[in-house]
Order: sequence, then structure tokens, then C-alpha cells
Amino acid sequence: MLTIYSAEHARHDPKVEMADGALVPAVEIPARAEMVLRFVRDADLGPIEAPDPLDRALVEAVHTPDYVAFLEGFWQRWLDAGRDPHAHDTFPFVWPTRGLRRIAPRHLDGLMGRYSFDAGTPMGPGTWAAAASSAAVAQTGARRLLAHGDPVFALCRPPGHHAMADAYGGYCFLNNAAIAAETLRQGGLERVAILDVDYHHGNGTQAIFEARSDVLFVSIHADPMDEYPYFLGHADETGSGPGAGYTRNLPLAFGTAWPAYSRALDDALGTVADFAPDALVLSLGMDTFHADPISKFALEEADFPRLGAQLAAGKWPTLFVFEGGYAVDALGRNTLGVLQGFEGGG
Amino acid sequence: MLTIYSAEHARHDPKVEMADGALVPAVEIPARAEMVLRFVRDADLGPIEAPDPLDRALVEAVHTPDYVAFLEGFWQRWLDAGRDPHAHDTFPFVWPTRGLRRIAPRHLDGLMGRYSFDAGTPMGPGTWAAAASSAAVAQTGARRLLAHGDPVFALCRPPGHHAMADAYGGYCFLNNAAIAAETLRQGGLERVAILDVDYHHGNGTQAIFEARSDVLFVSIHADPMDEYPYFLGHADETGSGPGAGYTRNLPLAFGTAWPAYSRALDDALGTVADFAPDALVLSLGMDTFHADPISKFALEEADFPRLGAQLAAGKWPTLFVFEGGYAVDALGRNTLGVLQGFEGGG
Repeated sequence: MLTIYSAEHARHDPKVEMADGALVPAVEIPARAEMVLRFVRDADLGPIEAPDPLDRALVEAVHTPDYVAFLEGFWQRWLDAGRDPHAHDTFPFVWPTRGLRRIAPRHLDGLMGRYSFDAGTPMGPGTWAAAASSAAVAQTGARRLLAHGDPVFALCRPPGHHAMADAYGGYCFLNNAAIAAETLRQGGLERVAILDVDYHHGNGTQAIFEARSDVLFVSIHADPMDEYPYFLGHADETGSGPGAGYTRNLPLAFGTAWPAYSRALDDALGTVADFAPDALVLSLGMDTFHADPISKFALEEADFPRLGAQLAAGKWPTLFVFEGGYAVDALGRNTLGVLQGFEGGG
Repeated sequence: MLTIYSAEHARHDPKVEMADGALVPAVEIPARAEMVLRFVRDADLGPIEAPDPLDRALVEAVHTPDYVAFLEGFWQRWLDAGRDPHAHDTFPFVWPTRGLRRIAPRHLDGLMGRYSFDAGTPMGPGTWAAAASSAAVAQTGARRLLAHGDPVFALCRPPGHHAMADAYGGYCFLNNAAIAAETLRQGGLERVAILDVDYHHGNGTQAIFEARSDVLFVSIHADPMDEYPYFLGHADETGSGPGAGYTRNLPLAFGTAWPAYSRALDDALGTVADFAPDALVLSLGMDTFHADPISKFALEEADFPRLGAQLAAGKWPTLFVFEGGYAVDALGRNTLGVLQGFEGGG
């Protein structure tokens, strides 16, 4: 299996994040992607290629140009405002929730709030470079899939599935899976399915496509009544307008282990099969692992090859887009498990 | 002048707050109200009375019952969830901005995000007791004003003007000025004006009354393009529906000193006079002082008696509701300056 990877991700190097009202060590760190790369390389999964240059137009087909410009210009604005040039981790602290206006103020703290939805996603000097490289990895993966149809692994970092059209959050800045799906659509495919198996609901991906019928979004995740992102990912969300019926959420309880997970996956794959997609974008979060430090599902190491094999059964041209997963020591082995299970399955 | 005060405010005793992406020492602390009380007492401003018991129905005329229940039950939920019983300062970290659903999840962190709009407002074990006492102080002040018409000082803490109908933020939980205005309305007054002279825009008060013509809201504050709360308080906001024309914002630039401030105050008082209110609720923030640690106006100590005298010119029955102001050492003297200026003016 071809892997697309860029070392630029390491320029996004947060040290702390906000969680439960405290600053704690960051978990979305460069070692994640580096660990996965090592296992992919050591296992000779296949060639490892650098991404093509980022096609900005495809990014702006998914994100608003003002948001992309904000991300790109953030660090220079930070410096221009006389803020700490050695800061690694900057956070907004006020958001335009209901009753407040969603305008872009001049002040950087207000601007950060305008373009985000949480306080847990640090931005620093290299965040834009890393996010742009991650999007380029996803785009390039989609192009290779278009070119030859064989499965591709886009080893994206930072992750993308929480990123909304014009707001960052959940460690995500640009929505890599959405950009990949759009790349496939503009590349000529008529129907693209996104299946999101990250432990957390992919609120950004859902919101970006909720009114569209050409991109199906199906997600299996921890019940948002109990888990981040809380405010999207409930079972009653099924798409809107022309997209009605093209969103499906399968929220699962804390403690879910392989038997129940596998049944949900069968169910989700049935929905994908009914859609008959020309390609599948797989938002591959590995935080369903029992030892994940911020998650509460109970998948074991041996379950990940099974997951890969189950995904292969539909025989759709498949792009894997790397999302979350924070048990760094196990991340390489488990991710490789999915990819090798996929190659051996079907 | 009669002062209403409750020592219960000290049960809200935060140690840290989020600002500029870091946890810094809290500025909205018990010493604020205690300093003002000392000056009021030492100057023999007038009697100091404890508040009547809180009338919950008046609180729920301004705030949604589910929000009030959330505030009241927060600490027990925190303990029930097994969280740190010694925590002083708890913060949400994700908010339902546009594209996300404003539902109340089971998880406490999600619930805190649902009922707030910033990450800078610590909640702790005594927050509800303090907020309820602060609202009772405002209610009681309004009742005394109804009873005798002489000016009353409601020495509220925590402050209230940022609190929305169903969201806390900006150090505010219950909107004391709004509850006071509602108390005056239900007490038989037909037209109530609120003039907010806090350095920060009173977004909560504005939002609560924006669609009503019986309560005028006028505010002088730092331009929200540059200053918290950013997402409300702009000059083009003038009320909505039946409230169209009954909201007025006068945003001023950083560095504003007395001459320009006094002109804006004249302008604001003209709007109040045109409304011909039966009473005036004065949201009295003292953070326009040049030495305020989080603010950027330039009023001097000698300006505060002038401000009080200027307010007195309209001869409206007036309730002062204490809001922000964080230069604790000067807070008593400056607040007393406004109140004595008012008594000597007119």
C-alpha cells in the first residue's frame, strides 16, 4: 500500500493543551505520526512518497477563504501584536455562541475565538505549515487513488475531522478527509463515501457535507452525550436539504469492545454499500484502543487487523486518512494492523 | 444613600482564570467588594442592609430555568462525577458555535460549554451561593428604590452584565442589572432604562432586552472590535423586533480619557432622557480607571465624582448595580467618588 507522508507536520509541536480546566501535556504531538511512519517503513507496507504541493483551490472548496487566510496569517499577526515570540501554545478564550455575533474583530484573541470552537487546540508558529502539509498529504493520496485505484494511506498530521468550514478545534485545522473527498469529486468520481472510525465524532466532516448528497458521511464514535465534541454526532442527525439521508451516526457507549464495535461497523458498511460509492475515504482514528489516554472504548491490538479486513469486504477504492489516536507506543502497531488487515482481507 | 450588601459573595473565591492562553491569577476576587464596602462604611454613605431572600421567579424571568438549575446544581454534579473536590476553578473547553447543536449533553464538560461562552470564568463550590446572593442584592435594591425612590447602591458581586439568558461568561453568572430592571418592571414601573458604564460591553444585558421596548439599554464601552466581549456591543446594534430603537452602543477607543468620555456620557444620557424612564439602573463598572489591570481607558480618580454628578442631572430614581473594576486598591475610593458625586450633583 502506498503511503503519503510529509515531515512538515513536526512544525506543529504543542507542549500543553487545555483539558478539564487545566493546562496538561499535549497529546497530539509529532511522535504520533513518527511512530506510525516507523511501523509502515519497518513492515515494508509499500512505497512512501512526499505530497504534491497543496492545491489551495481544493482547500477553499471545503473551507472559507477568510478562515484559511486566518490560519495562514495567524503567527505573523501574533508577532505583530507584540505577543510572546517563544509561545508554543496559544488558545482563544471567548466564542460567539448563540446571541453573540459571529464577526471577525480586530483583536487577535477575539479573532481566534471567531475561528474556533474549543479551548483545547493549541496553535503555534508552525501550525499553518503543518496543517497545510497535512492537507497536501490527503490531497495527494486522493490523486494517487484516482490515478491507480489501489488503496492509499495518507499519513496526515495534524488530524482534520473536527475542523469545520471556518473553525478549528479538536486538534484539527484543515479537514483532510473532506479535502480528500472533494479532490475525488473534482477528479471525476460521482459518489464518495466517508466512513469515520475515530473514537470522536467527526463534526467538521459532517457539517461540511451535511447538505450534500454526493458525499455520504457515516461515523461510529463515542456517544456525544458523554464525550467530545458533545454538540454534534447524535443519531438523529441524518443530513439536511439535498443532503437529507446522506449523514449517518452510530454513537456507542463507553466501554464498547470488538463484538459490539464490529456489529456497528457491519451496519455502517451496509449504509456505505447502499450508497454504492465510487471510492471510500476512511477517517482512521486509532483512539478506539483500550489504552488510549483520552478515550473510553475497549478495542484490543488483535481487533485492528479484523477492522481492516472488515473494511476491505466492500472492495471500494479506499483512501485511509489518519486522524486521532494518542496511545503513542501502540499507535504504529495498531495502525499497521488495520492497513495489513485491509490488504489481507476482502 | 442606602447600600445593599451580602457577605455571601466571598463564597465565590476563584484563584486562577484563563487569559491569553494561560492560567493567571484571578482578578474578580472577594477583596473587590470588601474594599468598596469599607469605603462606603468609612464614609458613612448611608445605611448598609442585607438583601431579602432571592425571588427565584424574578431570576427566571430573565434567565431560562434550565440554566438556573445548571448553576445551582453544578457543584454537586462535579462531586458526583468524581472530580477534584478541592478544585477552586473549573472551566469548560468546548462551545456550541455555529454549525454545532446547542444541546445539553450528560457530560459535565459538555454541559459547562453549553451554558457558557468563554473559558475565562471560573466556577467553584460557592459560585451558585455567591451568584444568588448577588442577584438578591440587586433585587432588594430595586425593591427599596420602588419603595422610596431615593438612590440605592446594590453592591453586587460577582458582577452580572455579561451573563446571557442561558450562558455565563466574563466573570458573570446571573445578570444582576437585568434582574433589577425586571424587578422594577414587575413592581409597576412602565419604562426602565439601563445605562452601562462598565469598560466592557454588557452583552448579556443587551441580549436579554434587545427585543423589548419597555427596557432601554445604553452602553459606553471599549470598542468590541478591539476588546472583550468582541461579538456584541457594536454601534450598529440597535435592538430587534419590538425592541428596535431601544438599544444603543457607544464604543470608544483605547485610551479614552475624561473629555471624550464625558461627551459620550452626555450623548448616552440624552438617549435616556428621550426615553423618559421611570427609573434608571446604572451598571457601574469601575474598570474605566487608567490603572485597571485588564482595561485600557484613562479615567482619573477625580473624574469619578464628575461622572456621578453628570448622572444625577436627569433626576431619575436611580439604582446603582456594581459590575466590574479590578484595580482593587483604588476601587473603594473611585466607587465612592461616583456615589458621592451623584449625591452632590443634579
